[in-house]
Amino acid sequence: MTDTPLFQNVTLIGIGLIGSSLSHAMRKHGLVGAITVTTRSQETLDRAVELGLCQTATLDFGAAVKEADLVIICTPMGAYKNVATEIAPHLKPGAIVTDVGSVKMPIFESLAPALPEHVHLVPGHPVAGTEYSGPDAGFASLFENRWTLLTPAKDADADAVERVKALWERCGAMVEIMDAAHHDQVLAITSHLPHLIAYTIVGTATDLGDDIKQEVIKFSASGFRDFTRIAASDPTMWRDVFLNNRDAVLEVLGRFDEDLTELKRAVRRGDGEKLFEHFTRTREIRRSIIDADQA
Amino acid sequence: MTDTPLFQNVTLIGIGLIGSSLSHAMRKHGLVGAITVTTRSQETLDRAVELGLCQTATLDFGAAVKEADLVIICTPMGAYKNVATEIAPHLKPGAIVTDVGSVKMPIFESLAPALPEHVHLVPGHPVAGTEYSGPDAGFASLFENRWTLLTPAKDADADAVERVKALWERCGAMVEIMDAAHHDQVLAITSHLPHLIAYTIVGTATDLGDDIKQEVIKFSASGFRDFTRIAASDPTMWRDVFLNNRDAVLEVLGRFDEDLTELKRAVRRGDGEKLFEHFTRTREIRRSIIDADQA
Repeated sequence: MTDTPLFQNVTLIGIGLIGSSLSHAMRKHGLVGAITVTTRSQETLDRAVELGLCQTATLDFGAAVKEADLVIICTPMGAYKNVATEIAPHLKPGAIVTDVGSVKMPIFESLAPALPEHVHLVPGHPVAGTEYSGPDAGFASLFENRWTLLTPAKDADADAVERVKALWERCGAMVEIMDAAHHDQVLAITSHLPHLIAYTIVGTATDLGDDIKQEVIKFSASGFRDFTRIAASDPTMWRDVFLNNRDAVLEVLGRFDEDLTELKRAVRRGDGEKLFEHFTRTREIRRSIIDADQA
Repeated sequence: MTDTPLFQNVTLIGIGLIGSSLSHAMRKHGLVGAITVTTRSQETLDRAVELGLCQTATLDFGAAVKEADLVIICTPMGAYKNVATEIAPHLKPGAIVTDVGSVKMPIFESLAPALPEHVHLVPGHPVAGTEYSGPDAGFASLFENRWTLLTPAKDADADAVERVKALWERCGAMVEIMDAAHHDQVLAITSHLPHLIAYTIVGTATDLGDDIKQEVIKFSASGFRDFTRIAASDPTMWRDVFLNNRDAVLEVLGRFDEDLTELKRAVRRGDGEKLFEHFTRTREIRRSIIDADQA
């Protein structure tokens, strides 16, 4: 069964892990007529062409979006303001602009004010990724059975939201519409805090003396090994996450600190009962997640 | 090719994830003549028999070890002292006693002094596990291509060490002989700290209000999801890890705290350069681990 294209012309601004995966997925499922890719770097653009990720490639953001029915911003969030300023004068009336950034509240300051009134903004966040980055890292199935969260403003165009939702669903994602502020709170816990902690632990190990560091690498047990994968995620993307979701991250970090102090006290005092009780409680959350997956 | 048995009679004391996996692996590779299992609970013992994990089953620790050439203690570490006291009068001269506990220094206080001089103690630690526990959780390949660390005393019987090493190697493990104190320092970083942190984060999420908790479960991104797996590990085992490796864990927790404070300050100040520099550095450790795997 061939899918009908949802959009005639789609422009990807930025072609890293997410952008290239979107190109693969959209082409695989026949969702678009033609893809234009635009990037800041000539080298990345050349690679995108070599990989067959687009029909048209240009370094000129404005020229790239002129014909676009859908513009997907896949750059680090730190570039959003410039991107919006550069594309704004060239966007078609009725064009839809979306993004894939991990923090959604700042969109209403960085992207929204710069865009003309005659386009529709539908911010999005595919909760999917790997520790690899760049145009070679993408693959068509990245979004399958993963959540993509859309956080349109209350007065957003319903038809535009529907079309962006349909695009993600046909890439295999489960889609949910959420309030942007709420999104940023939930993700601060499920994603941003774990990443900051993993970055911290792996950094702590990096600072060890050379002989013990070699052994930490050699004998890295499952706990640490998982953390190193998380702490190998794209530095630019994660820098921008923490710059953009500062308040929610600091809030959950405060809670985490209190809880860690409590467990540390239990370790110091040799309070086995407290440790056992805590470790039993956390096991339940894992069960809930597994149950939620099966539901 | 059939392997020659390394030991005629092996006794497993405790038959959880590690004990049952050892039974599967030893039988699969034909490493033992006969296996005796002994446990504290009748229910677990019955299940071990049902699963075919042993030829002989008894609740009497002393009777279980009478004929043993090799005794493998697979109970939580908190039980070691009692186990040693109960088996000591019944051990054959020349018998080898080993264990699978995650902390090695306390062995020289809990196990060693209680054992008769005519047996050989070779403490061991298979760095392998899953978040499941109990006799049903075991499988033969658990130790394959994973490290098993042996921490015999300097004056340990060389032949006994060789035989325990051979057993693990023929179960598929890579084996290294290490100093016990050094082992406990390395594992504090690679395993104990990550587990304590994962337990903390998942606990922090558990304490959230019900509505946000439901969403944390529903949208759990890869970071948090990995942490919940780690934080679902056996509570008794992990309680005993922290009771037994207190000093090394508190030492690395101190370093972790300092590093977290620094990153937290960078988030609060919006210091993108510092965050980027840190996140780039941690990526290197992941590469080193992947290189070490391939070497």
